[in-house]
Amino acid sequence: MLEIRERNLDHSAMIDSKKHWDNIAKPIGSLGVFEDLIIKIAGIQGSKNVDIGKKAVVIMCSDNGVVKENVTQTDSSVTAIVTENFAKGIASINQMAAAAGAKVIPVDIGINRDLTVPGIMNRKISYGTGNIAKEAAMTMEQVLKAVETGMEIVKDLKDEGYKIIGTGEMGIGNTTTSSAVASVLLNLPVREVTGKGAGLSEVGLKNKIRVIEEAIRFNRPDPGKPLEVLAKLGGYDIAGMVGLYLGGLEHSIPVVIDGVISSVAALLAARINREAVNYMIPSHMSKEPASIKIMEELGLTPVVYGNLALGEGTGAALLFPLLDMVLKVYHFNSTFENINVKAYERFDTK
Amino acid sequence: MLEIRERNLDHSAMIDSKKHWDNIAKPIGSLGVFEDLIIKIAGIQGSKNVDIGKKAVVIMCSDNGVVKENVTQTDSSVTAIVTENFAKGIASINQMAAAAGAKVIPVDIGINRDLTVPGIMNRKISYGTGNIAKEAAMTMEQVLKAVETGMEIVKDLKDEGYKIIGTGEMGIGNTTTSSAVASVLLNLPVREVTGKGAGLSEVGLKNKIRVIEEAIRFNRPDPGKPLEVLAKLGGYDIAGMVGLYLGGLEHSIPVVIDGVISSVAALLAARINREAVNYMIPSHMSKEPASIKIMEELGLTPVVYGNLALGEGTGAALLFPLLDMVLKVYHFNSTFENINVKAYERFDTK
Repeated sequence: MLEIRERNLDHSAMIDSKKHWDNIAKPIGSLGVFEDLIIKIAGIQGSKNVDIGKKAVVIMCSDNGVVKENVTQTDSSVTAIVTENFAKGIASINQMAAAAGAKVIPVDIGINRDLTVPGIMNRKISYGTGNIAKEAAMTMEQVLKAVETGMEIVKDLKDEGYKIIGTGEMGIGNTTTSSAVASVLLNLPVREVTGKGAGLSEVGLKNKIRVIEEAIRFNRPDPGKPLEVLAKLGGYDIAGMVGLYLGGLEHSIPVVIDGVISSVAALLAARINREAVNYMIPSHMSKEPASIKIMEELGLTPVVYGNLALGEGTGAALLFPLLDMVLKVYHFNSTFENINVKAYERFDTK
Repeated sequence: MLEIRERNLDHSAMIDSKKHWDNIAKPIGSLGVFEDLIIKIAGIQGSKNVDIGKKAVVIMCSDNGVVKENVTQTDSSVTAIVTENFAKGIASINQMAAAAGAKVIPVDIGINRDLTVPGIMNRKISYGTGNIAKEAAMTMEQVLKAVETGMEIVKDLKDEGYKIIGTGEMGIGNTTTSSAVASVLLNLPVREVTGKGAGLSEVGLKNKIRVIEEAIRFNRPDPGKPLEVLAKLGGYDIAGMVGLYLGGLEHSIPVVIDGVISSVAALLAARINREAVNYMIPSHMSKEPASIKIMEELGLTPVVYGNLALGEGTGAALLFPLLDMVLKVYHFNSTFENINVKAYERFDTK
């Protein structure tokens, strides 16, 4: 079974980091949530000398059997095509990650055909999942393998010197699976946690809700058993991201949450081990309805509100330059000692 | 009096920009508010080929007579010191603007002593404003000069090739003046639009509210006359930013709103000429209470929620790398023609 070492944030590093912030020549706490994020990363990395220089966005790509139920506007073949585009460097995340200085790592964790474009990490567990409306998505063995895959990738990236990891996904049908998981975990009606994805019609949305309700009725997962919920209603993409979060905990790496699917994976990871939340960094608030509820349960505060619905890790990538800018102030700014204002602690710019 | 040419956004450029977005190989509208911002800038610049390469943050620096009423934690001398630090390159905004590729331009528009550090634009109108609790902040002549100064700076920057301008301010006492202006313009009780600035105590806050109420009672500005409200209750820093926004309208340059003081200036500019809103770009939502109400009236949607309270244009600077990232997708991403998915318009990644 899943073995995760128990860890705690390094509170002494966090106190040092807070002291360092408070010593910088600017009004105390005036960079708000961004100061808290840097302090959290100090706790994760075990040092006030926060370093997020080497960045990656890991995109978990896989197919979902539920696409057979007409819950999406396009067919499953798009999963493979877009995944290949990640490797070719021509997708949205490639442009954005390049601007943010982050490496894009597409992972085939369960796409329904073999991929031939070089640059895709092959960790395929099977050719797509089962159709959750009529069967479990994955066996318990498969789901554990997917989670462990995510954890291993974090370990490998840490060994390669990566300091922060953004999560991303590509999988036609994965707002359906993630809404199913969210409905069960949050104990909310399906219609309250199901959106139109990237542009489903009203009729399409009704069908999607009906299919998710059917899937939950058929599979009857125990809401208290997150791995069972994941196996029955989720997908390899979600399971792989659960592994990234648990890997963050296991290997002391900050892992950035992206949109709603990534948020559902974060919720699953938190239900498996609440300590994992301490290694999660929120980025943007997705426009899908489940996101706010999940962020509330996780106690996390996203800083970007852009009504994004792109996936691929693009929201996580948007956080990187913001953290980099704030870190410039943190690392290079004047402190009280070298500035001409005495008692700057009490400095009120206003 | 203030002459501002009437302008309108270039709607044909905006339609072209929207078409260009919709032709990019990603789910329609999936970059949300960021797509709208780029379309707006296309309308301002009159071309779908949006260019924000050359960026500046203009920081309006001045002193406020109301500081005599003990509404701040530090004395007025800090305005000059921090302004000199902008020129020396050692303030928070310097680090952040450097990371964003933006030039920092500190402007002495009314500091209460002469500055000797090179690199500060000298546009001093007088040595600080009057104490609004007992007199008008500025004469009508002074306020017009300050607004025109802001407009001229935008013209000069446009001539130098700048494509986008962030607003910033430094002026001890300017949350007091901006709350006074906000209370009158929004017709809201002073306590509802007054916060603790960068860390005032409860007792300090009570005094600040009392002073603002006194200032409004003494000056009795006509809420329907924004320039009168500005002259009686505002300051050179706010007036200079009003000029930046009106300059944006006059010279077709996008001007980025920063925190609450910059937002109050934006509200004043909008009350002087509603068309100015079309040239304003929102960035972050400040933690001061007036901000939400102002953004609602302006109909603008900030994208960063970080509880920032730093000023100096730091929030505006945070927007720049986000726009740059999104523009990479806009300018360089694959379109339908060169990607392997047909009918990508209907592409739903989920």
